[in-house]
Amino acid sequence: MTKKLSPRKRQTAPAEGKLAAERIRETARDLFYRQGIRAVGVDEIVARAGVTKPSLYRSFASKDELAAACLRDRSDDYLRRFDAAMTKSPDDPRGGFRLWLEQLSQKATKPDYRGCALTNAAVEYPERKHPARLVAAANKREFRDKLRTAASAMGAREPAMLADGLLLLIEGAYASGQLFGTDGPARVLVEAADALIDSCCSEAAARSPAVRVRARSAIRGS
Amino acid sequence: MTKKLSPRKRQTAPAEGKLAAERIRETARDLFYRQGIRAVGVDEIVARAGVTKPSLYRSFASKDELAAACLRDRSDDYLRRFDAAMTKSPDDPRGGFRLWLEQLSQKATKPDYRGCALTNAAVEYPERKHPARLVAAANKREFRDKLRTAASAMGAREPAMLADGLLLLIEGAYASGQLFGTDGPARVLVEAADALIDSCCSEAAARSPAVRVRARSAIRGS
Repeated sequence: MTKKLSPRKRQTAPAEGKLAAERIRETARDLFYRQGIRAVGVDEIVARAGVTKPSLYRSFASKDELAAACLRDRSDDYLRRFDAAMTKSPDDPRGGFRLWLEQLSQKATKPDYRGCALTNAAVEYPERKHPARLVAAANKREFRDKLRTAASAMGAREPAMLADGLLLLIEGAYASGQLFGTDGPARVLVEAADALIDSCCSEAAARSPAVRVRARSAIRGS
Repeated sequence: MTKKLSPRKRQTAPAEGKLAAERIRETARDLFYRQGIRAVGVDEIVARAGVTKPSLYRSFASKDELAAACLRDRSDDYLRRFDAAMTKSPDDPRGGFRLWLEQLSQKATKPDYRGCALTNAAVEYPERKHPARLVAAANKREFRDKLRTAASAMGAREPAMLADGLLLLIEGAYASGQLFGTDGPARVLVEAADALIDSCCSEAAARSPAVRVRARSAIRGS
């Protein structure tokens, strides 16, 4: 005779599974970021999350898939924050971008800064088809597009060129922040970006109301 | 009765040990760079180098020490190449730096580019005291000093500031080159550096014979 589950049990079982998956994901996200993905084993993750190994494998097919899921969380969060910074001041795209950059400069000069989780994943997994690397590469492509939109809104003569220069500075802040800490080169991030933006946008264009209108529609369209 | 070694054997044994150590180091240097340090096991290194495990441990106390030795090789080579590029044209520090940067831009837009081995090691080993990380951090500090000397030679008003801006661009090329390949942001590396240098050096200073003299002595003294 099959034992019938009480209605309460039937309802809570999937919720518990979801809770465990969330806890695993959150724990792994933090451990992977702080120590590196390859440095963290599944045993450490389940022990820290207070779950069992089968519970992990019920939600994630493998450690690689768990890493990819964690990176997707980071990517979504990253791109959402950038969008929020840029849409906050649609009349002043340069000001919005500068504020976002200032926050990055502050983070990247903190002791124990660990850089960008997505860039770090690409360093750890050079194989093009690795699930973690695929998420990192997709994030970077999307961010590059967003930077081009921002560069266009700032009135750049060649938005793709300015965007790439800014991307070099940003990736440089992620990397050097890990190596130099509080006194690192990321302290000049905003000034260096200013110099690039100045050199890529004619002063007249930056002041022109027409550019302001273009800026607004570019931001809205992103 | 102790068997006496023939003179030939006594002479060749250390040489063979040195040869094996060199082969291990060369093999590991390549494997660590292409796949990442954590991804490569000692078994793979000895198999590829055609030596035995005891032979590896006779020359290197641990895999970590072998990784540190490989990174020291890379660091020495890197700093020597930079010095060579800068001393090649003592009358034109900006030109010498630009040539070095052009070569980096070309490398960083090749398919399967793997970035800077030293930066990658810092990503893989966040623990401050790890032997591999110590080598990476020392290399970056020394390179930052060399960039300051170069910025001073180029006539920068604030050499430390220009050097840090350039360091962000350079680290950005290492990181983004791994992610974007042939069409990556490193394609604008030289132009972005030009914009930074222009904004940090007054045109008059860049042309002044006094700066040229200062440039020569700064390079010679480095």
